[in-house]
Amino acid sequence: MQERFLESKSDLFFAGELSALSAISGSFAEQVKVIHIVGQTARQQQEKRLVIHHCNDINPDHKVYERMSEPVRVAAAELWHSGNAPAEIDRVIRECFVRSRPVYIFFPSDVVDLQVPSSLLQKKIDLSLPIYSAAQDNAVSAIVKRFSEAQNPSIFVDALVLRHGVVEEVRELVDALKIPVYYAMMGKHIVEDAHKCMVGLYNVVISSPGVAEAFQTSDLVLVLGNVPSDTNTGGFTRRISQAQIDVRPFEVMVDGKLHQGTYMKPLLAELVRTLPKVRKPSVIPKLSAASETKSSRQDIITQDWVWGRLAQFFEPGDVVFGDTGTCTFGLHGESFTPGSHFVTQTFYGSIGWATPAALGSELAIVDGAKLGQIDHKRTILITGDGSFASTMQEVGTMVKNNLAPIIFIINNDGYTVERVIHGGTPTIQRYQQTRFRSNPSRFLAPGSPCQLSQMHHSD
Amino acid sequence: MQERFLESKSDLFFAGELSALSAISGSFAEQVKVIHIVGQTARQQQEKRLVIHHCNDINPDHKVYERMSEPVRVAAAELWHSGNAPAEIDRVIRECFVRSRPVYIFFPSDVVDLQVPSSLLQKKIDLSLPIYSAAQDNAVSAIVKRFSEAQNPSIFVDALVLRHGVVEEVRELVDALKIPVYYAMMGKHIVEDAHKCMVGLYNVVISSPGVAEAFQTSDLVLVLGNVPSDTNTGGFTRRISQAQIDVRPFEVMVDGKLHQGTYMKPLLAELVRTLPKVRKPSVIPKLSAASETKSSRQDIITQDWVWGRLAQFFEPGDVVFGDTGTCTFGLHGESFTPGSHFVTQTFYGSIGWATPAALGSELAIVDGAKLGQIDHKRTILITGDGSFASTMQEVGTMVKNNLAPIIFIINNDGYTVERVIHGGTPTIQRYQQTRFRSNPSRFLAPGSPCQLSQMHHSD
Repeated sequence: MQERFLESKSDLFFAGELSALSAISGSFAEQVKVIHIVGQTARQQQEKRLVIHHCNDINPDHKVYERMSEPVRVAAAELWHSGNAPAEIDRVIRECFVRSRPVYIFFPSDVVDLQVPSSLLQKKIDLSLPIYSAAQDNAVSAIVKRFSEAQNPSIFVDALVLRHGVVEEVRELVDALKIPVYYAMMGKHIVEDAHKCMVGLYNVVISSPGVAEAFQTSDLVLVLGNVPSDTNTGGFTRRISQAQIDVRPFEVMVDGKLHQGTYMKPLLAELVRTLPKVRKPSVIPKLSAASETKSSRQDIITQDWVWGRLAQFFEPGDVVFGDTGTCTFGLHGESFTPGSHFVTQTFYGSIGWATPAALGSELAIVDGAKLGQIDHKRTILITGDGSFASTMQEVGTMVKNNLAPIIFIINNDGYTVERVIHGGTPTIQRYQQTRFRSNPSRFLAPGSPCQLSQMHHSD
Repeated sequence: MQERFLESKSDLFFAGELSALSAISGSFAEQVKVIHIVGQTARQQQEKRLVIHHCNDINPDHKVYERMSEPVRVAAAELWHSGNAPAEIDRVIRECFVRSRPVYIFFPSDVVDLQVPSSLLQKKIDLSLPIYSAAQDNAVSAIVKRFSEAQNPSIFVDALVLRHGVVEEVRELVDALKIPVYYAMMGKHIVEDAHKCMVGLYNVVISSPGVAEAFQTSDLVLVLGNVPSDTNTGGFTRRISQAQIDVRPFEVMVDGKLHQGTYMKPLLAELVRTLPKVRKPSVIPKLSAASETKSSRQDIITQDWVWGRLAQFFEPGDVVFGDTGTCTFGLHGESFTPGSHFVTQTFYGSIGWATPAALGSELAIVDGAKLGQIDHKRTILITGDGSFASTMQEVGTMVKNNLAPIIFIINNDGYTVERVIHGGTPTIQRYQQTRFRSNPSRFLAPGSPCQLSQMHHSD
């Protein structure tokens, strides 16, 4: 799935390039694969420092913006000569996949017309992850030894498993080990909620009832792909105090010893082969099913009712986007339909990201379906009125492209999560109360597949 | 006027800071005074590299975004200690005014609560421009000598006169010298269109009829505040071939000799005193009034009709914003009402800037009127449907704040200027056809001062 959601963004140089910078920074933070293709002025214009519009000085250095994105990319290709352009493109695509972070390709406008050999197109780009055998063997031995000594090991899954494309390996490992599984908010649905080994969301201050107590009975935790941000640890209240094996994208920490040069995907594949050999029988804690949350009021939509109701709506194959804010925090604890996918951005937390992301997802689903490559079904966007206000114009792009994702806008009069954080209802945090009935309709063209409805109370 | 439109932007650190970066870069390009106040994580959180949301790595350097804005600011204050905080704030405010470009103030969140002496508040910040007497005297002597030798000198005005607050000095100089005045697109209305010395827009490929020929009769041009970008020179077709005195913000070029360390404002003030002494009688070229442009069609709104009609609507005191695209190119050549102000962004050229700029202008007008400090009357925004789509949500902020600027949206089905540049009507440049009648209405609250109407043909 990861590869299918590779994002590619192309921009006019300068103004457009900088407007995208927060989105690229978010992809860097969340370890998402993005290829940002930036068109630049022609090489001669750059060399002569011509004062072209979108530059930012009278004797302009045309590469000034290129330098500004250095901290939020892992590789960049400057296609200045036709000779090395094809190899440079392949190089940064590989870096994008291996390191799972944004890369840039800078294209002076006159380079687009140059002829290059097509030979590299015949060759599949090598996207395999490096394996440093000695380092990996040492790490695996240490992990196996530690596991064989443990009485009640468990697995804790988090977002970097998703980002680095290791979901299948993790699911295989869980099936083979049959030990308790816990997840961080950002690690939602890597192991499905209905899996027999799944105990629940472990987050301390916002865990499901009984989960924290169950977690404490474990004497060793295999931590996979952790993002230890405030928003993903219940405000730093989750501290894993027992012994742990901390598997990170390019290294692993075992008993306080750091093993570097171990890539998560091949390491996990090796653990699937070796760890079951030292497996002991394990008991999965059975928690009493959470009592069905029910709104105390039927006449309005409440936070404690809406998320569970929305989760019931998801079907296998759905790709669900929850924008930053109450949507994220509300949905993480709900039980999702097996086979559905959940995408959030809880670490970087830039509101408004999910509307254009849903546009990209739906485009990929439609394109993939045409090619027969995709089994996904629907894109579902769940956003708040505050987040939606940031990027609402992308609904216009959806309609223009005849796309029809399903959009839920939780209209709670703006920035509820900020009100929770800061208390009260200061007017500065309130977005202009909007008329959503009339809003999406403004984007509708005749014959559009979009429909519109409004809910004011629980059904 | 310049000082009244000083912009101040405050942002939550990181995601918000980066989202504003293109706007700050545009202000750097256009030499606009902006103070960008960025709230940061608390000092201890920064020192401990805590993984706070909006950071972008697992062991995060909280200052990574701060470094990304270095190329688009002229000064920055990091308020890390209470001791020097008041002086640091005053220092960057001065830099902002003297250099007329963005400055940053970075505020760790825990610094906000620190007590500081209020003594500096009693002292007016020194915003006077430096005068290096020797350099300025040399430059003035060279300019006076050159002027005394010229038979038919003229003045060419451009945007940096506006940006560096030298409009009054330029108007005084024109009144004293009584020589022909020409303007660049970005220098519109520094000397008013109705002034008896005004000849017209000199842009070569898009000049008013007869202006280019008149310009050639001049044997010396005093160039004031030029921005020599492609978009401001008729695509580099305007080359001033005769002798020129090129007055730039911090230096002046006379007969190919560069005099550095001369600030435009005090230099112009000195020229107002000295140049009239060597003045010769001058004839202002009288061009036949441009025949009134009339649409060839009455049933639709055409480019050759709409700009002149809009210009007739302007009143003294109006602040008119023309967004990037056909609005900019269309309005520059029209004759504006004396006392009206015109704001464009022709060099940086980032579409969508004008809607939030109009919001800021209207806020300043309303606030200034309350304080009795402002004589401006109305904010008028003229934008295209493509530009408007970029930042339309700021209409919601206007309505929320009970502001009622006048907004004209030229709905020509998206990105007309791109179609002119690239030819044809490629679908990629088309914005989703929108229903403007239903759009602004979505932001309307009960009792809003906003009204809505629609024009389909010339009146």
